[in-house]
Amino acid sequence: MEVTGIGTAAVADRGDHTLVVTLAYNGAPYAGFSRQPGQETVQGELERALSTVMRREIDTVCAGRTDAGVHARTQVVSCPGFENDVSPRKMLRSLNALCGDSISVRDVRRVAPGFSARFDALAREYRYRIVAGAVPPLFLRDFAWWIRKPLDVDAMALGATHLLGEHDFVSFCTKASSIGKTTNRFVETILLTEEEHLGERCIVLRVVGNAFLHSMVRTMVGTLVEVGAGRRPESWVADALAARDREAAGPTAPAHGLTLWDVRYPTGVLVERTGR
Amino acid sequence: MEVTGIGTAAVADRGDHTLVVTLAYNGAPYAGFSRQPGQETVQGELERALSTVMRREIDTVCAGRTDAGVHARTQVVSCPGFENDVSPRKMLRSLNALCGDSISVRDVRRVAPGFSARFDALAREYRYRIVAGAVPPLFLRDFAWWIRKPLDVDAMALGATHLLGEHDFVSFCTKASSIGKTTNRFVETILLTEEEHLGERCIVLRVVGNAFLHSMVRTMVGTLVEVGAGRRPESWVADALAARDREAAGPTAPAHGLTLWDVRYPTGVLVERTGR
Repeated sequence: MEVTGIGTAAVADRGDHTLVVTLAYNGAPYAGFSRQPGQETVQGELERALSTVMRREIDTVCAGRTDAGVHARTQVVSCPGFENDVSPRKMLRSLNALCGDSISVRDVRRVAPGFSARFDALAREYRYRIVAGAVPPLFLRDFAWWIRKPLDVDAMALGATHLLGEHDFVSFCTKASSIGKTTNRFVETILLTEEEHLGERCIVLRVVGNAFLHSMVRTMVGTLVEVGAGRRPESWVADALAARDREAAGPTAPAHGLTLWDVRYPTGVLVERTGR
Repeated sequence: MEVTGIGTAAVADRGDHTLVVTLAYNGAPYAGFSRQPGQETVQGELERALSTVMRREIDTVCAGRTDAGVHARTQVVSCPGFENDVSPRKMLRSLNALCGDSISVRDVRRVAPGFSARFDALAREYRYRIVAGAVPPLFLRDFAWWIRKPLDVDAMALGATHLLGEHDFVSFCTKASSIGKTTNRFVETILLTEEEHLGERCIVLRVVGNAFLHSMVRTMVGTLVEVGAGRRPESWVADALAARDREAAGPTAPAHGLTLWDVRYPTGVLVERTGR
């Protein structure tokens, strides 16, 4: 049967597998994940490297389109329409050699055609780090938001419980949504912990949800910090959510504290196809 | 009684307390801790900041003179001859404002005169991080040595036991010692662990000893990596030590994996003197 579609759909149909690339990146040097003309982006750099190896143009889809300055420990990218051409092992080495120092490719595998890193993802986990106190962070400087006063973590944790479950999170969304698009999202886990990384103490907010609106995690953090700093009561988080108005919530926390931590897929879809 | 001495000794006698500054630093931009003419050093930057606050020249002594590129989580510095002039709280803020982004002052306190960060230290702890495997480190890139093959950590731990206790560590010293100076050192703890920092796995070597020769920890690491990589048996570590010859031990591991982690003092000497 001839493939009759055009564009990405046609490409998706042609190959016998989809290539899945799992990567980490330091968001600092990039204008975000998504390819943009004239800007250094993670997608731009990765697609350039893939195209160099494959000697053709490669289009990719990702699990979470991170903003400028946001890091990823686990970003998943799918590239449809691959033949059995370059071994995953060789591709991993080539991509790490071709991408700059701020991208580290962790895994390359072949999965069944039709897999989409974006649409097959069941949940995303983000983590946000805060260093609170008079002493500035040093080793965590590029990976945590420094707040010069101590925070009441228990109050923040109480406030966070209001964000659990399915809600219209439009108060926590920076960009106006397109007409007819839902701003409902389901937050399955929200957890505040105190951790030590590279010998420095920090507060970590972990959020797991089915999907996230633009700046949603950073607005959650900015809102919970208002509570932790004692400027608002914990019940104000529920009020901010109910208002369905971005002005009702706290400020957007800075990008460099945020990391796309993990992505969850249905069991089996990321099983590697062995070479034929 | 008139103070009749000159230079540092005179300064040490004059004040009613010694100022103790505890700081962390990222070693990357510095030509090491120790002041050197025409070079950016941690001591140079700290003394410049102290002198700006005090409006006179300040001399400091440190617990561990780290090499170019080596980091510190806890470096302790003493400055003798202080009067009760600037509050420690204000000094902490001023030093953090005056020192660059790569230095973070964690604590400032006044202790009894005569205290020396160097000579009163009972033990120093260093930690060295290694990321081993095909995937390059990203968030740990500036804080860990990347070795492209997996390492046998159990073999390394076995090899490390030979370094415990008091030995002549001249095989693990890069600079020829001055005549008559002992190269005996006492290693009280040496421990290999696997840890996760910023979402990345690493191998950590922790070493606690009374004092360390030049490049001693880095040569220990370079030697143990020979064992971990399977190029040498664990018993070779004992042979290298017994040879009393730098050529007998492994290479010096890179500076950026090493951190001066902590310094131990006798109970009570760092007790803060309250203002009068």
